[in-house]
Amino acid sequence: MFSIIKRVLIGQPLKSAQLGEQKLNKTKALAILSSDALSSVAYGPEQILIVLMTIGAAAYWYSIPIAAGILVLLLALVLSYRQVIFAYPQGGGAYVVSKENLGVNSGLLAGGALLVDYILTVAVSISAGTDAITSAFPSLHPYNVLIACLLVVVITVLNLRGITESASILAYPVYLFVLVIFIMIGAGLFQIMTGRVSAELHAPIGSPVAGLTLFLLLRAFASGSSALTGVEAISNAIPNFRSPAPNNAAKTLAAMGLLLALLFTGIVWLAYYYGISPKPEETVVSQIASATFGRGFMYYAIQGITAMILILAANTGYSAFPLLAVNLAKDKYIARMFTVRGDRLGYSNGILFLAVASILLIIVFKGQTEHLIPLYAVGVFIPFTLAQTGMLIKWFREKPDGWKVKLTINAVGALISFTVMMIFFITKFPQVWPALIFLPAIVVVFHKINKHYESVGDQLRISTCEPEAPIEGNVMIVPVAGITHVVENTLNYAKSLSPDQLIAVYVAFEKDAEKQFEEKWNQWQPDVRLVTLYSQYRSIIQPLSKFVDTVEHKAKESNYRVTVLIPQFITKKRWHNILHNQSSLLIRSFLLHRRDVIITTVPYHFKK
Amino acid sequence: MFSIIKRVLIGQPLKSAQLGEQKLNKTKALAILSSDALSSVAYGPEQILIVLMTIGAAAYWYSIPIAAGILVLLLALVLSYRQVIFAYPQGGGAYVVSKENLGVNSGLLAGGALLVDYILTVAVSISAGTDAITSAFPSLHPYNVLIACLLVVVITVLNLRGITESASILAYPVYLFVLVIFIMIGAGLFQIMTGRVSAELHAPIGSPVAGLTLFLLLRAFASGSSALTGVEAISNAIPNFRSPAPNNAAKTLAAMGLLLALLFTGIVWLAYYYGISPKPEETVVSQIASATFGRGFMYYAIQGITAMILILAANTGYSAFPLLAVNLAKDKYIARMFTVRGDRLGYSNGILFLAVASILLIIVFKGQTEHLIPLYAVGVFIPFTLAQTGMLIKWFREKPDGWKVKLTINAVGALISFTVMMIFFITKFPQVWPALIFLPAIVVVFHKINKHYESVGDQLRISTCEPEAPIEGNVMIVPVAGITHVVENTLNYAKSLSPDQLIAVYVAFEKDAEKQFEEKWNQWQPDVRLVTLYSQYRSIIQPLSKFVDTVEHKAKESNYRVTVLIPQFITKKRWHNILHNQSSLLIRSFLLHRRDVIITTVPYHFKK
Repeated sequence: MFSIIKRVLIGQPLKSAQLGEQKLNKTKALAILSSDALSSVAYGPEQILIVLMTIGAAAYWYSIPIAAGILVLLLALVLSYRQVIFAYPQGGGAYVVSKENLGVNSGLLAGGALLVDYILTVAVSISAGTDAITSAFPSLHPYNVLIACLLVVVITVLNLRGITESASILAYPVYLFVLVIFIMIGAGLFQIMTGRVSAELHAPIGSPVAGLTLFLLLRAFASGSSALTGVEAISNAIPNFRSPAPNNAAKTLAAMGLLLALLFTGIVWLAYYYGISPKPEETVVSQIASATFGRGFMYYAIQGITAMILILAANTGYSAFPLLAVNLAKDKYIARMFTVRGDRLGYSNGILFLAVASILLIIVFKGQTEHLIPLYAVGVFIPFTLAQTGMLIKWFREKPDGWKVKLTINAVGALISFTVMMIFFITKFPQVWPALIFLPAIVVVFHKINKHYESVGDQLRISTCEPEAPIEGNVMIVPVAGITHVVENTLNYAKSLSPDQLIAVYVAFEKDAEKQFEEKWNQWQPDVRLVTLYSQYRSIIQPLSKFVDTVEHKAKESNYRVTVLIPQFITKKRWHNILHNQSSLLIRSFLLHRRDVIITTVPYHFKK
Repeated sequence: MFSIIKRVLIGQPLKSAQLGEQKLNKTKALAILSSDALSSVAYGPEQILIVLMTIGAAAYWYSIPIAAGILVLLLALVLSYRQVIFAYPQGGGAYVVSKENLGVNSGLLAGGALLVDYILTVAVSISAGTDAITSAFPSLHPYNVLIACLLVVVITVLNLRGITESASILAYPVYLFVLVIFIMIGAGLFQIMTGRVSAELHAPIGSPVAGLTLFLLLRAFASGSSALTGVEAISNAIPNFRSPAPNNAAKTLAAMGLLLALLFTGIVWLAYYYGISPKPEETVVSQIASATFGRGFMYYAIQGITAMILILAANTGYSAFPLLAVNLAKDKYIARMFTVRGDRLGYSNGILFLAVASILLIIVFKGQTEHLIPLYAVGVFIPFTLAQTGMLIKWFREKPDGWKVKLTINAVGALISFTVMMIFFITKFPQVWPALIFLPAIVVVFHKINKHYESVGDQLRISTCEPEAPIEGNVMIVPVAGITHVVENTLNYAKSLSPDQLIAVYVAFEKDAEKQFEEKWNQWQPDVRLVTLYSQYRSIIQPLSKFVDTVEHKAKESNYRVTVLIPQFITKKRWHNILHNQSSLLIRSFLLHRRDVIITTVPYHFKK
């Protein structure tokens, strides 16, 4: 049943040899890896205006120099990550760069921050997209959380099917979004140039503004730079590209940077020229669209496609999270299961973990994950800063051809990223302080996991461990609950192995039952020694494990091994299991984990 | 950790021999078994007035004859159940009576209806009590469901501690409730007799009322008879009484009937004399109390104690449900685990099941379980009718001394119960129709469970099953994941049992790995045959189970048994488990349930 549903949703399993076919070309990669970055132009410009609004509409012209600053930051990030791509073509981005150049802890900090960020990407963008849907259909509003969770499930299924298949479906909305925003910007510029928009709507650039502080400008800059989240995704996902992977990834990154710059500039410019103020009930993009086209077909198309791209922004998390997790798992900092490829060759454990974590976040925050955005942004700029500082040190150490230019690019990037991060911490401390707790905590957990894997490796290796004492003989214990066919079956099996000693154990809850059973047993199996234990507290496990202890102690002295054989009947239908007491399961897991005995389950399959 | 919490909450385990000390004397039994019945006087009289109100205040005097009718019904029920107690001193009430006299299906119908009813008792009375609390402290209102669930947990813990201990705690509020209501009735009567209450407040008995129909009177009667729910609890719980159990139970039942009759009559009379109309925002008892005492100390004492008794009404369910479940389980109609006594000698599985089921109901209905009351009442009168019909047939069959009197009592009781039940079905069909679906469904499930247990019994019995073929030899298969100490440990154990054949199996995900492994293996364990399987879909279980199939097929031909030995390392700390892939668990449960092989888990305990 489960496997049929799985097949319909996920598709037939793929052979390992088909891995190459699953790689992405540039067009698909751009669509799949840039939806997060591109979609952020839907809210980035607005963030700048919201901060400036606290001074007054006269300050809006400052959005132009601030946007220019953000474009410089974008350029620095793109150039820097381009260098990361060529320097680390195996992917891993900020994690690998920081680890190799700044040391393990910096790498783990970058990796941990990004892992958390991808979960936040999914939760935040799905919530935002759901809000857009339920704004259009208010009757759906009570089902916000449910809709958000269903959307996560849909995107998860697409990603479990495999990246190329989901790319085909996801490419259309991304390119459509780029197209309609370009049309909107084009139409707006056309109207401005043909003089249909009054120049009085906005204060001219350079007009003096009272009450403006540097702090406020920096804050506006930091808020606007949230439009740059998602830029690093490509550098983490290089292994997903067709070869030559680094070249293709670099070209895709350049294309994404260019698109992002154009969209961002256009929207900021139109918002400034139209003199648009942020409103709580209508987004800036919506205001621009309705000023340009009126509330007609194009307006609704832009709104619908924007909602869609916000939902798809979640997909960036799905592409980048599993690959980063593989890098961390290969270095033994997170559970090994993240390196296993699923039926469709995707890293399904990473995909599923991401889905569960983001659904939990959505449920805990009741679909209102918006106020996690500052936390999310600060979590992005920490790895940005670390990665670029790492590159800087790399150039300084290795000094390759033209290293001074490269070093300058990364130095500028590191400085701006660091500044933005600090501005976030200073101006939004009440929202971002949790990062100061959970990021170090994650690094500690990474180290604990690493330590465990290392110690397991030591203990498993044949060369490093002491040889065991040879096994001189076997003692077998069969717990019996009655004189039944299941017990007979188990005793026959035990006898066929001809152990040095075979003991049946019966736990009685009443004194009378004890004697009765002994008599019956001696008639039935006179050749098997029976030990009866009286349990006045009606527990089976306690007297049994005490008995096993005694036997084990004696057995160890003469290098005998103790095996407990558990008779277990297997019911025909699964629901029948709740009708049986499952003592055998309890006994098994207790003895296996607490005592040094071997557990053999001798099944007896019911025929009906 | 868990066991410490358990000990603090539940107390030290008790020996089986201490069972007698846990029995109830009459005073405690009355408190513990009658809180449901007694508390229903808090809402029963109101139900009558609510129906009469649809005609007008002039009709209120009809509450007196209706109350008389309900007293007759109460008398019939008490006399009838008195006879049940002596006829069936082992307890079981309606279930046992119906099963023995009317046949299995009637018994199961009565038993199923009561099981569901006890769950409803808990959910409904806890919800009502919570409403009373949050009415007093409105700021708690948003936490209604949470408070209700916590109350269920508290009562569950009390019951898990053991019945006499909870009786001591629960006895005070019950007797306090009886006391304050008696004081209220006494004070009211005193005021009436001293002429301080105007006789004009009410229409005199016998005044003609326009628009009154028989249908309406019957409906008012049925509504009022919801005050009788819980009367049967004592007859189900006879085994909890000190000996002579039946005599003590009968005396307790008589005391409860008398108290219930007095409280009920008093409240109906005062409500009539004061001319009280039901109001949505104030209960009838509250109106009487405030008319009698004003809003002083006594008023708040009555309100507080009423709220408490409503919560404690849930305890009746806790006393009766587990005992009824034991009766059904002994007859193999529900899971055997309900017959197991817990650490404190209570039937803890029944208690826990009841707690979980009622918490689920409370959560699903968001704490508003009031509209389940009609369903609950109809579920009570079905077993009432069945039990009394059963007694009727018993007297007719056995014809003991004075059987005509006994038969008449039960015949009257059966007739009234049947009438009330039919009135419920006719006048409240929209609320009670689900009973027509889920009660038959429960009976079907009971039969299915019974059939399973019977067939299991047949298959287990030594005398009825065919002898197995003797075991001629053993084949052992060890799935190996690498050349490690855990594998070595398992192979040594397997060799010590000297099987006829020992095969190691390695599943490779890559062709290269396959060859490499074979070479290494032949150097390491040249005497153990290695089979490598290539899995192009990266599944371990599928190729492995296919291989096991082949081996098992061959082995069966020559009566060999197949054992799969699974090397498993046991981590030192529990959380380490999530860091390992647990393939061994998957392999074990798959092979154990789907194939006829014996599974041996050879543990290797990590030292750190």
